[in-house]
Amino acid sequence: METTPRTWTLGEIANLLGGTLSGSPEIVISRPVPAGSNDSHGITFAETSEYLQKIETTSVGAVLVPHDAPKLMLPTISVDRPREAFGRLLAMFQRPLPIEHGIHPTAVVSPLAEVAATASIGAYAVIEQGAVIGEGTRVYPFAYIGEDCVLGADVTIFPHAVLYQSVQIGDHSIVHAGAVLGADGFGFVWDSPKRSRRIKVPQVGGVAIGAYAEIGALTAVDRATAGDTVLETGVKLDNLVQIGHNSSIGEHTVIAGQTAVGGSATVGKRNEIGGQVAVSDHVVMGNDIYLAGRTGVAKDLMEPGVYWGVPATPIVTAKRVNSLTYKLPDLNRRLRELEAKLADLEGKIQ
Amino acid sequence: METTPRTWTLGEIANLLGGTLSGSPEIVISRPVPAGSNDSHGITFAETSEYLQKIETTSVGAVLVPHDAPKLMLPTISVDRPREAFGRLLAMFQRPLPIEHGIHPTAVVSPLAEVAATASIGAYAVIEQGAVIGEGTRVYPFAYIGEDCVLGADVTIFPHAVLYQSVQIGDHSIVHAGAVLGADGFGFVWDSPKRSRRIKVPQVGGVAIGAYAEIGALTAVDRATAGDTVLETGVKLDNLVQIGHNSSIGEHTVIAGQTAVGGSATVGKRNEIGGQVAVSDHVVMGNDIYLAGRTGVAKDLMEPGVYWGVPATPIVTAKRVNSLTYKLPDLNRRLRELEAKLADLEGKIQ
Amino acid sequence: METTPRTWTLGEIANLLGGTLSGSPEIVISRPVPAGSNDSHGITFAETSEYLQKIETTSVGAVLVPHDAPKLMLPTISVDRPREAFGRLLAMFQRPLPIEHGIHPTAVVSPLAEVAATASIGAYAVIEQGAVIGEGTRVYPFAYIGEDCVLGADVTIFPHAVLYQSVQIGDHSIVHAGAVLGADGFGFVWDSPKRSRRIKVPQVGGVAIGAYAEIGALTAVDRATAGDTVLETGVKLDNLVQIGHNSSIGEHTVIAGQTAVGGSATVGKRNEIGGQVAVSDHVVMGNDIYLAGRTGVAKDLMEPGVYWGVPATPIVTAKRVNSLTYKLPDLNRRLRELEAKLADLEGKIQ
Repeated sequence: METTPRTWTLGEIANLLGGTLSGSPEIVISRPVPAGSNDSHGITFAETSEYLQKIETTSVGAVLVPHDAPKLMLPTISVDRPREAFGRLLAMFQRPLPIEHGIHPTAVVSPLAEVAATASIGAYAVIEQGAVIGEGTRVYPFAYIGEDCVLGADVTIFPHAVLYQSVQIGDHSIVHAGAVLGADGFGFVWDSPKRSRRIKVPQVGGVAIGAYAEIGALTAVDRATAGDTVLETGVKLDNLVQIGHNSSIGEHTVIAGQTAVGGSATVGKRNEIGGQVAVSDHVVMGNDIYLAGRTGVAKDLMEPGVYWGVPATPIVTAKRVNSLTYKLPDLNRRLRELEAKLADLEGKIQ
Repeated sequence: METTPRTWTLGEIANLLGGTLSGSPEIVISRPVPAGSNDSHGITFAETSEYLQKIETTSVGAVLVPHDAPKLMLPTISVDRPREAFGRLLAMFQRPLPIEHGIHPTAVVSPLAEVAATASIGAYAVIEQGAVIGEGTRVYPFAYIGEDCVLGADVTIFPHAVLYQSVQIGDHSIVHAGAVLGADGFGFVWDSPKRSRRIKVPQVGGVAIGAYAEIGALTAVDRATAGDTVLETGVKLDNLVQIGHNSSIGEHTVIAGQTAVGGSATVGKRNEIGGQVAVSDHVVMGNDIYLAGRTGVAKDLMEPGVYWGVPATPIVTAKRVNSLTYKLPDLNRRLRELEAKLADLEGKIQ
Repeated sequence: METTPRTWTLGEIANLLGGTLSGSPEIVISRPVPAGSNDSHGITFAETSEYLQKIETTSVGAVLVPHDAPKLMLPTISVDRPREAFGRLLAMFQRPLPIEHGIHPTAVVSPLAEVAATASIGAYAVIEQGAVIGEGTRVYPFAYIGEDCVLGADVTIFPHAVLYQSVQIGDHSIVHAGAVLGADGFGFVWDSPKRSRRIKVPQVGGVAIGAYAEIGALTAVDRATAGDTVLETGVKLDNLVQIGHNSSIGEHTVIAGQTAVGGSATVGKRNEIGGQVAVSDHVVMGNDIYLAGRTGVAKDLMEPGVYWGVPATPIVTAKRVNSLTYKLPDLNRRLRELEAKLADLEGKIQ
């Protein structure tokens, strides 16, 4: 089965990474580990002299080091760029969650859905009428793929993700566990001037997500009122993010955890948006904008740059403002001293 | 099947909206679309002269316009209030997620539960003992309706919602995907002055939700320690909201995404609470209060009005404070200048 | 069945609490209720003279009171510490969600998983290969226990929790509904200086949670890149919390709702962290630290104490700063007055 864990010998790893081994090629390596680990079947990396020194105090199985590293007591593989090589090593040890090709007997697939022959549909997945599941796409247990949803090729839908209706997802995209795509946007109007009851504005649009996107666990992307809420190619959302209805996020923008993008907002391309940020309803943001954590964007922000604060402010100024805020007791004291001195001076002059 | 998509001709739509058609009544309209769309089977609306001008540059299928609009090249239906007519149009195109009447063969329904004859229980729903499901109520796949939960008539429970135990939901209410109602409140006490371990305070209460309520996707409402956490009639919660145990939310109050209401808090009626707001534990709030995004309510707030900031402050003042905060570098410079001038003056006088 | 509700007579309750009954021992009590309830089958407590007075205006079934309380018209049980006795009473009325011992026929358990004989696996649970489920552990419906996950003894996994892969959970721990443990950490690098596409950093580590931990509803704990994201013994997380990859939380630390701990952060022991707090990536925090709601910890914080604000500031100072911030209009006015007076004075002197 493709997901069986596997181990490598140190000799195999040295070969695969194109590095130079110092130590026994027979050592068995079971997993990559962080610096500081004492796992005798683990492999880690050390790039700087500080880390190279620290690593000597551990009993880790092996270490990726730069070619010019001093000789260590531990088994090493010397490579050009240890951090990058460690990244390749991570990929070697990556195992998809187990799933069988084909449709699990407990999955409930509508006869009006279309599932590619090479797709995998896990236990207790539900695929509704009109849904299309592309080649090589994997739908894990308990996922709900609603009516008229279209999943491209090589898409991964993790357990418990919910796609309401008319949600499109491009090739190679990933939706993490518990994400909810296509719930109703939050729109109500009072029934009358007397305000006896709020009436729900019907939400009939969908969600359109491009290729190479990633949607974090427990993240919500609301369907549009009409048309689509749009996440372009390469958009990456972290966990617990909220994307309001009718909004659009430009390609290759990444958004960190617990951030909210309001309804009908437009976020540009290649932005990097920190955690707990808020982008207000109807705001338009340009490209290549970095927002530090908890920034609040309440009006259009077009200029590329790094921002922080409420409202979003160039970060040098925002840091200066933050620093002065915490000097307010000092400012207040200086103000009181000035008032006293001035009163004193006024007395002398009159 | 009730959820089959359907299209309308422009003539039918003009009739249903009571409007005047300009263009071919045979045009097929498949969906409402937002302004700016070029969907030749879409219909949108334009109310202002600005939008009426812009719409001419698109190739949308048809447009709802006011009676006094200039003649457009596109097919139009003129109506009294285009935005409102568009709302009625949205409702015409709304389709519930597909579900069959009756109990799906894969649903696990306790023999001690009571399901109304006209209710629909979807694939892989679980209904525990003592639960009551009202007339016309729809429970979508993977919903967990726990022990002694009582759902009224015409309630919608979307996929993956979880109701722990003793959760009541009033008629016509909606619970979105992934919402969790009735998880334990967050209460612990140290086991002893030595503080070796925190002991969980047992949570044995329920959640009571009124009629016409709506609970957003991935929103959590904790059960009370004893008695009920209460959401009154018409309360609307957006996605990713947290409602603490023992709290109560007054009728027709709406709460936007990622807001938290603390434990034992009391929120009044007809409030509109923005996103990422925090209402602290034990706080009491009055009626007709508007809180801008990220407001923090740390003590009782009874006066109707519009507030912002931490603590919640009348919004005019709060905006003034926010604006002055970003002028702190300027204030600090003015203070330094005053200090210099005053020192200079003192020198002259002595 | 163990979860059948049960009632007690007032006499039984007095005996069990070791209190002195005033009233009929035959009164039937169905549930604990909050102060102010008029439930004639409910029991509550009143400790202070204020609450003892208020309780007289209700028609609650019975009240726990201190030994020196004045005589009430309602049935009472006098005890040493009413609040504490009420806590014991809550425990008497606590009922676990219903679940049968053994493996439900609809559960999908891999033949390569190991389930203890005394464990309970609910309807539509999925247990993947290599998973180990300990003695007395309860896995509720729709839980997904992924490959190589190890659950200790007496663990509770509520409906819809998702454990991706290599997640370990210690004895007596609780995972609430919709929690997602082990989703990928949020890590991407540009593919090239031209930045045409972000590449996902493979995440191959796990999550290691100690004994007596509690994970709130809809809370996400990401897997480590390599090694484990760690929650030590007795850690309690509220709902909608985000714990980033590679981070670690020290024993007996509690974290309130909607708080985020960044990647590779280290949080110490016995901390109490409020709601909507942010602890930045790579930050190290010491022990016995209290953070008020919405604090932002952007750099290492080692000193025990109570903090608030951004950056985290000793709370007395932070409150002073917050208060002065809202006096900025006043400070600004004073500054203007000083400027005017000084200009006036300068005129007089020259």
